[in-house]
Amino acid sequence: MSQTDDLTRYGRKIMDRLEAGLADKVTRRLSEFDPILPALITNYAFGAVVGRPGLDLRTREMLTVASLVTLGNARPQLELHMRAALNIGVTPEALLEIVIQMAVYAGVPACMNGLTAYRAAMAATGHTLPGLKEENL
Amino acid sequence: MSQTDDLTRYGRKIMDRLEAGLADKVTRRLSEFDPILPALITNYAFGAVVGRPGLDLRTREMLTVASLVTLGNARPQLELHMRAALNIGVTPEALLEIVIQMAVYAGVPACMNGLTAYRAAMAATGHTLPGLKEENL
Amino acid sequence: MSQTDDLTRYGRKIMDRLEAGLADKVTRRLSEFDPILPALITNYAFGAVVGRPGLDLRTREMLTVASLVTLGNARPQLELHMRAALNIGVTPEALLEIVIQMAVYAGVPACMNGLTAYRAAMAATGHTLPGLKEENL
Amino acid sequence: MSQTDDLTRYGRKIMDRLEAGLADKVTRRLSEFDPILPALITNYAFGAVVGRPGLDLRTREMLTVASLVTLGNARPQLELHMRAALNIGVTPEALLEIVIQMAVYAGVPACMNGLTAYRAAMAATGHTLPGLKEENL
Amino acid sequence: MSQTDDLTRYGRKIMDRLEAGLADKVTRRLSEFDPILPALITNYAFGAVVGRPGLDLRTREMLTVASLVTLGNARPQLELHMRAALNIGVTPEALLEIVIQMAVYAGVPACMNGLTAYRAAMAATGHTLPGLKEENL
Amino acid sequence: MSQTDDLTRYGRKIMDRLEAGLADKVTRRLSEFDPILPALITNYAFGAVVGRPGLDLRTREMLTVASLVTLGNARPQLELHMRAALNIGVTPEALLEIVIQMAVYAGVPACMNGLTAYRAAMAATGHTLPGLKEENL
Repeated sequence: MSQTDDLTRYGRKIMDRLEAGLADKVTRRLSEFDPILPALITNYAFGAVVGRPGLDLRTREMLTVASLVTLGNARPQLELHMRAALNIGVTPEALLEIVIQMAVYAGVPACMNGLTAYRAAMAATGHTLPGLKEENL
Repeated sequence: MSQTDDLTRYGRKIMDRLEAGLADKVTRRLSEFDPILPALITNYAFGAVVGRPGLDLRTREMLTVASLVTLGNARPQLELHMRAALNIGVTPEALLEIVIQMAVYAGVPACMNGLTAYRAAMAATGHTLPGLKEENL
Repeated sequence: MSQTDDLTRYGRKIMDRLEAGLADKVTRRLSEFDPILPALITNYAFGAVVGRPGLDLRTREMLTVASLVTLGNARPQLELHMRAALNIGVTPEALLEIVIQMAVYAGVPACMNGLTAYRAAMAATGHTLPGLKEENL
Repeated sequence: MSQTDDLTRYGRKIMDRLEAGLADKVTRRLSEFDPILPALITNYAFGAVVGRPGLDLRTREMLTVASLVTLGNARPQLELHMRAALNIGVTPEALLEIVIQMAVYAGVPACMNGLTAYRAAMAATGHTLPGLKEENL
Repeated sequence: MSQTDDLTRYGRKIMDRLEAGLADKVTRRLSEFDPILPALITNYAFGAVVGRPGLDLRTREMLTVASLVTLGNARPQLELHMRAALNIGVTPEALLEIVIQMAVYAGVPACMNGLTAYRAAMAATGHTLPGLKEENL
Repeated sequence: MSQTDDLTRYGRKIMDRLEAGLADKVTRRLSEFDPILPALITNYAFGAVVGRPGLDLRTREMLTVASLVTLGNARPQLELHMRAALNIGVTPEALLEIVIQMAVYAGVPACMNGLTAYRAAMAATGHTLPGLKEENL
């Protein structure tokens, strides 16, 4: 088994921890463009970078959300990584804090659009928005 | 004591945890522009947002570093928050991981310029770069 | 009545000058996320910043439109502030000039997408596009 | 015939090389806003800049696609210039390479959203995605 | 006299209103690159866009400053247009308000770096920072 | 010899075509941070992406310059890739055209700052600015 195959397997395992079936879904989508493209995402982005030791995956997803709220032009990726954060145990409350904090660094519109993505990610994963929970009403 | 005074005191306390003397330094600098400006940073940015419960300050500084590496045009703020992260216990290794991870989301140049800021923040806080530690050579 | 309550009332008044019912609408929307979040927008963004003396609200909305066209990734906010600018007396012709001027500083695509937002804001406020007025045909 | 008329005619010719009918379409759309606006695009953007000698139009369109993928917030313009690139002889394979290369400089999300635009531009011009061609399956 | 010559003269006049000698300075600098480049700035940027009727030059410079603070990566241009704004009668207090307002839309770091540029522009035009004026001390 | 070693060697060869000694220089610099970091740049950025077949290296460097002028916040990388473009045979005139064209898509300030980088890259590689050549004076 080659180093490259190991990295593919490792990257795919991380992807599937983030969202069930994500590795297959991304591979299928990217294969339509180019046969080697899936490996760039699987091996490089997830295997060689996001999969590095030194930070746990939960913290990494929180950082990714902060980066994507800041970019402000990557809605599908933002929703994916918000769902992923929720899937691996970031609490809805903590995830919301990231979006709110970005108002200071990336501006209020970035935060507002981050909230819209957050609402969608919460709905997609079956969560109730924090402010709508009974104990907050 | 008014609510506003409480918020000022709370925001200033957070700033001084990030870097000794930061609240006074920022207040002095911003007072040159406008007498009310310091309160916007102290009370709003640090007191009302960064100081919110729900995420510990260490995680918040990591998120801020991720956002500032992503923005790529805020070098002084990036170095400040990298020093702050180190000051409140983020390890040099973890801080480096943030910068490297941003290569995936914000691009390799953002990562490269983040490394330059990291080198400066490490030097300013008396740290040796991870790759230069004896156990890595 | 506390300083904070004063700031809330002041911020809400500015919001309702920008668009009738805006304060309630934003408060309702943000309350779904967090009970304290509305105050961040009402008190800080509108009360303590946009509501500062030293610049009239009409000029401030023009500046906000310039900033949002430049950002290029905050369509809902851009349309809101374009409607607000029209509501408080910025003429359709002046508003259009802002969008066109941004072509120089933020690039032609930012201007083009600003025009699309402008068309929507004009329609939502019952205005005819300047180039379609009879005297220009 | 004035210099300005010459520039208009020259700019319009370039636009129509990029996409049949583009000059008329853009002129009609921009005239709704302002009678002079079309000339800014026709004469300046296309006539005086994109139409400069020193680089062939095919290379220029590739550069424009690189810039628009990097900006990440100008989807309609990106799809237009991708179709234009295909129309003037950039191969689907070369166009795809631009999008993939931008992952390094503008980040993976910019590349992913570039791929979505690429899929749309390919469909609009009657092309099959490279990875779906028989020789690649 | 051709239309183009008229536009050059008109654009140069606007540039010299913004800063004495600006038209010559920019022309000299850009001529080192390409003989036609100065006309692009003089005729297009200043003559055909910034020089459009419909908004006075003072308001236009305020909008430009808002855009450049938002971009956050164009320090020389930001300082130039801040000096220009002061030169044509924008008060130091009003100019400062623009920078502060941008904290809401472009984030606090953009505002902080705007303040640094503001300090430089104020010094270059012989102004005292507002907060340092005797009546504010 | 492993696949990974092949990719390292291939990526390094591309880097050294761009600038003599670049692979060693980047490797040395990045090793100070982390022993595995150089491979991310060498293998992924240059080996697996920039080194893909389907576009020649000269075109790829032109695209990279377009992307970096558009980003506007990556000066060291922009100068490096401008020198690289010149080193592998992009003419000074063609390189200048890229910077000028970006005025349309990324705005005039991005173009102006691109010209500053261009001047530095031309000087570093012993070239005379096109407008200063005798035939243009």
